[in-house]
Amino acid sequence: MKKIDLNCDMGEAFGNYPMPNDAELMDYISSANIACGFHAGDAAVMQQTVALAIQKGVAIGAHPGLPDLQGFGRREMKISPQEAYQLTLYQIGALHAFVKAAGAHLNHVKAHGALYNMAAKDAALAKAIVQAVYDFDPKLILYALSGSEMITEAKNKGLATASEVFADRSYQDNGSLTPRTVSGALITDEDAALKQVVGFALKQEVQSISGKTIAVDAETICIHGDGAHAVAFAKRIAEKLKSEGILVKAPQYEK
Amino acid sequence: MKKIDLNCDMGEAFGNYPMPNDAELMDYISSANIACGFHAGDAAVMQQTVALAIQKGVAIGAHPGLPDLQGFGRREMKISPQEAYQLTLYQIGALHAFVKAAGAHLNHVKAHGALYNMAAKDAALAKAIVQAVYDFDPKLILYALSGSEMITEAKNKGLATASEVFADRSYQDNGSLTPRTVSGALITDEDAALKQVVGFALKQEVQSISGKTIAVDAETICIHGDGAHAVAFAKRIAEKLKSEGILVKAPQYEK
Amino acid sequence: MKKIDLNCDMGEAFGNYPMPNDAELMDYISSANIACGFHAGDAAVMQQTVALAIQKGVAIGAHPGLPDLQGFGRREMKISPQEAYQLTLYQIGALHAFVKAAGAHLNHVKAHGALYNMAAKDAALAKAIVQAVYDFDPKLILYALSGSEMITEAKNKGLATASEVFADRSYQDNGSLTPRTVSGALITDEDAALKQVVGFALKQEVQSISGKTIAVDAETICIHGDGAHAVAFAKRIAEKLKSEGILVKAPQYEK
Amino acid sequence: MKKIDLNCDMGEAFGNYPMPNDAELMDYISSANIACGFHAGDAAVMQQTVALAIQKGVAIGAHPGLPDLQGFGRREMKISPQEAYQLTLYQIGALHAFVKAAGAHLNHVKAHGALYNMAAKDAALAKAIVQAVYDFDPKLILYALSGSEMITEAKNKGLATASEVFADRSYQDNGSLTPRTVSGALITDEDAALKQVVGFALKQEVQSISGKTIAVDAETICIHGDGAHAVAFAKRIAEKLKSEGILVKAPQYEK
Repeated sequence: MKKIDLNCDMGEAFGNYPMPNDAELMDYISSANIACGFHAGDAAVMQQTVALAIQKGVAIGAHPGLPDLQGFGRREMKISPQEAYQLTLYQIGALHAFVKAAGAHLNHVKAHGALYNMAAKDAALAKAIVQAVYDFDPKLILYALSGSEMITEAKNKGLATASEVFADRSYQDNGSLTPRTVSGALITDEDAALKQVVGFALKQEVQSISGKTIAVDAETICIHGDGAHAVAFAKRIAEKLKSEGILVKAPQYEK
Repeated sequence: MKKIDLNCDMGEAFGNYPMPNDAELMDYISSANIACGFHAGDAAVMQQTVALAIQKGVAIGAHPGLPDLQGFGRREMKISPQEAYQLTLYQIGALHAFVKAAGAHLNHVKAHGALYNMAAKDAALAKAIVQAVYDFDPKLILYALSGSEMITEAKNKGLATASEVFADRSYQDNGSLTPRTVSGALITDEDAALKQVVGFALKQEVQSISGKTIAVDAETICIHGDGAHAVAFAKRIAEKLKSEGILVKAPQYEK
Repeated sequence: MKKIDLNCDMGEAFGNYPMPNDAELMDYISSANIACGFHAGDAAVMQQTVALAIQKGVAIGAHPGLPDLQGFGRREMKISPQEAYQLTLYQIGALHAFVKAAGAHLNHVKAHGALYNMAAKDAALAKAIVQAVYDFDPKLILYALSGSEMITEAKNKGLATASEVFADRSYQDNGSLTPRTVSGALITDEDAALKQVVGFALKQEVQSISGKTIAVDAETICIHGDGAHAVAFAKRIAEKLKSEGILVKAPQYEK
Repeated sequence: MKKIDLNCDMGEAFGNYPMPNDAELMDYISSANIACGFHAGDAAVMQQTVALAIQKGVAIGAHPGLPDLQGFGRREMKISPQEAYQLTLYQIGALHAFVKAAGAHLNHVKAHGALYNMAAKDAALAKAIVQAVYDFDPKLILYALSGSEMITEAKNKGLATASEVFADRSYQDNGSLTPRTVSGALITDEDAALKQVVGFALKQEVQSISGKTIAVDAETICIHGDGAHAVAFAKRIAEKLKSEGILVKAPQYEK
């Protein structure tokens, strides 16, 4: 039976500010990347989100970001590889404490926003983040952009990886995402997005923006949790995969 | 052979702001309480301070504080027991990650500043902090004010404890610290402080501010790390204890 | 013609986290208390909210709070009067810059949350906040809890004041708010709240929780901006006042 | 009589963390750029530093930086021009409040660290910062890197400017600073630095790292306030300028 993971960024509320879709989204995803207090999230939100993931049987990942709450971790910061190592390790540890206290285990790590994007292209940053994950627990699974430096460095280090693809982003002929500045970068037609998701899961391929069929490593599909239609779209994706006989399941941490 | 622990708050630098005595103080103490990024410290400082403690053979503790960097965690905040639980757990986890990545183990937890003082008197806060320590690792040792609610709650829960006394603070007849607002609260004469330290270690007793000899649980002595004379005074204390045949040694985490 | 002010806390979004009712609420209020980046708000939100208030002809006030974004400024912190002075002055200045850059003028100051509540009862804090307002601009109007130390200290200093009452809170026989811990503290029946609002505006009186008619200084009515029904309720209040022939108008800063 | 300004970044303490040289440095400089709470400084430090500058007759400037206390505002962040405008305006306003409350006036603005460096090269950022200064008060003087986009944009806008040069940095043949990554970027010989300072003040020229004499706009000389020898070096510079008959004086805000 074919299987694929559906992951979503979770726990990105902060203090008085809610993220109202989290509880419902947990019904449709297999992996939750939980914010750790730097770009979003706080100790209360982390405790609640970990409890929710456990209750719904969703795999728990740490979702470390840049120290920029105002910018939601989306503004690039020129940090050194050493700083990337330190802030990743700190945030993994903070989330792990809630997971451990709740009697569960940490499954994976996925970097957030600008940290994710910078490390996808910058081998030194990627190596530092991979080292932080490895030093904390070499059995953790690294989720990262398919084809990125992060995947390469994680494999070099011997970490398990999950190559991430996007339901609602188009791809170029070389297998990379169409930049957001280019027309057609976002797939706004839900049926087209569903078709793309099925192609990822069944054939590890995608139709590029120019119409070519290209191969892509697709082990986990990222779903966006914000927006008015996020829950409904997550539900459609989960149901579509099921109807195609595809199992929605997180990669397994080997104890 | 008599023994006692000497502990000091460490890693309270932040970003560009140094705490210049840390490295030297490590030569004289047996336990380092390392700040976790809320009242002081950051991921870089934590990594460096953990490395230093390992190098010097000093036991490593988490030193969680209130989320108030400007106030250095010294301003009371009305937090709920649940919030105390969450922020303690978060900070223990963050420090633990650096300890684990360095191949060492976390030995103890000591709350900082206003959190320490509020929980000494408030059983509900004390219970919440104790629960956070217990939920993370029931073998961790709780360092707390001798005779406080923290010690009581930790013992009720079955945590190992280390009752803390102060080298440079005077005691009242009832065994509690003389409030700082009262004249004579601080012992400024180093010889008197040294004599008090020896009394703690050899006889578990102290001469109160009124001249009475009173019993006090004294398992770990707090040394202040800031100030121009901190290193010299730490050295004198360590040497004095040695000359009296007292072993300076941290309580041991039982693996 | 009778008149009264309707004020609402505004600009309490932060970064990626919206406060979706702000624009609509501006249609019904006469004074906006705009958060200044400590308990909520940031430089972007402040700029937008100032622009919105100007566009809608709403008087602009600074709304300084405690430095506690996670707690939304609602957790008491033991700050000194000097610290209260400093954080109030800082925040007034920050907001003033956006007001000045937009060609408008700052009308008033209202403290937020725990700062508001602490200063209502603590004369030293009240005096410090009043001094900060006065030192920045002695023509600014201080909005504060009717009957509080803040009003007393502001009058002593010679500041103009606006005594604040609440549409949806009940009052005790002595004219103070029924504590939230007491049953009946919140008025959940909208018609009762509207009746109370009219009593404030027309007669400067309120029916206490025990049924007595008592006098109360009522120059500005606080409306809560959060919650699903906030906009609809604000609209009802504004319409009710109009239908009673009462002018909704902010106290005027005298240039 | 020839004159030049000596400026120094001041008020970069934070909470419990001191900047011990500030008081002494004030005796030798003519302009203080005071941190505004984003990269360093807080409301208490700002109040104290403003008071100190007034007492010593030093011109007061706002010194806005990126929102990165841990990185001391030295890590580049990809902010939009709009964000640069907002954070500059916010910080100018915050500092202005302390200056106004103390009965003094704000003289200038100088961006800090990465913000200074990014805006020196990026015309859109420069324009946004200039606009913020202008919108707050078009009579403020902008201090910025000699020959930078900041100077160009400020002049285009009609702001008064002060072109900044460095006592302890070497220059290339094209008049730009030797990058720090290049050997010889820092002038470690104090006599050479003093000679360079006199050249700036008397002839508006500098000897480049290759030995050529080149023209440079030099209206204000930046002195570094940190480091063990900062005060002694500041004193030597001030005395050297005096001995050469050069007046150390800030550019004057025209009321």
